[in-house]
Amino acid sequence: MLGRMTVVEKGPQGRRRGRGARERILSASEQLFRDQGINRTGMDQLCAVAQVSKRTAYQHFATKDELVAEYLRQFDPDVMPGVFDRTDLTPRERLLAAFELPESTPLCPYIAAAVELHDPEHPASQCARDYKIAFAARLTETAREAGAEDPEQLGEQLALLIDGASARSRVLNREAFSTAAAIAAVLIDNAIPPGATA
Amino acid sequence: MLGRMTVVEKGPQGRRRGRGARERILSASEQLFRDQGINRTGMDQLCAVAQVSKRTAYQHFATKDELVAEYLRQFDPDVMPGVFDRTDLTPRERLLAAFELPESTPLCPYIAAAVELHDPEHPASQCARDYKIAFAARLTETAREAGAEDPEQLGEQLALLIDGASARSRVLNREAFSTAAAIAAVLIDNAIPPGATA
Repeated sequence: MLGRMTVVEKGPQGRRRGRGARERILSASEQLFRDQGINRTGMDQLCAVAQVSKRTAYQHFATKDELVAEYLRQFDPDVMPGVFDRTDLTPRERLLAAFELPESTPLCPYIAAAVELHDPEHPASQCARDYKIAFAARLTETAREAGAEDPEQLGEQLALLIDGASARSRVLNREAFSTAAAIAAVLIDNAIPPGATA
Repeated sequence: MLGRMTVVEKGPQGRRRGRGARERILSASEQLFRDQGINRTGMDQLCAVAQVSKRTAYQHFATKDELVAEYLRQFDPDVMPGVFDRTDLTPRERLLAAFELPESTPLCPYIAAAVELHDPEHPASQCARDYKIAFAARLTETAREAGAEDPEQLGEQLALLIDGASARSRVLNREAFSTAAAIAAVLIDNAIPPGATA
């Protein structure tokens, strides 16, 4: 993405900026939506943080709804490649690695959007749903490689655990991923017969 | 509560109403917070739906934050008595019954509040946390009665599954409680040795 940024734009304060307005808006969205939520973040504040004029912002995103959807599309387009594309781990180890998130991991942005938007037909709610399905598919694929008896079932179960850990960490204000990882280990042991490929 | 309502109040349209203003405000909150969210619901709309004047509303709740906290306190003060106080089920059956929620169950209001409020010190976030801890304690208690080897662990694990099912149902826009129930059955079988009390 950065490689394509050849045009140097000026911010509202006339400063020359190295990154494109679109990228700055998305980066401001990521920060503000995470720290204060989607509904509490207005276009005025987004433009101020991104240092773009509202006119410029609306040239890139016709509506805030469109911006929210694009923010989610950009968030993790390859669905945790840092876990699922690791070749140094066995498939079974990759399944467990999906639960090793830093303690300070904020609430999953796809859950946050689905909760905040209150509309399953909103383009961002659709993105959130697509992501969650893609994430379960990644787990299913890995479970199949690991020799699970019913990889779809295990994939969907592990996906639910990740969502539970994320939501529960937010409500309790302390991490719940270790609880989810312990459940995952039980499920994986139950689903993968001894002597399977991994 | 209804038994204590002896004063008949007038709504803003002068109609005599059988229920107290406070109760009508809480009931309107429950409906609007569930259907459109906390942040999208203003005091004006709440007062219109509850048919009280803003002056009356602020006599009962000094701030919207206070109203949000009270709405959560009133939501399920006895923590699922319809499941945990059932004497016709064995403790093990009660653990599984906690997962039998109707398909149309809306997102858990405590998760919704924690997601929307973005402030762990908000009185409603504190209520949400207290509820989630009380809910896990109910599960732990029941797991102990059922003869679980480590009832605290099983209680916390089952609580995470419920949160996962609630969050995932919202994101996917289809119920995920049956997935959580299947995981719960595995965990319960693993945690409760054959020949335990239930």
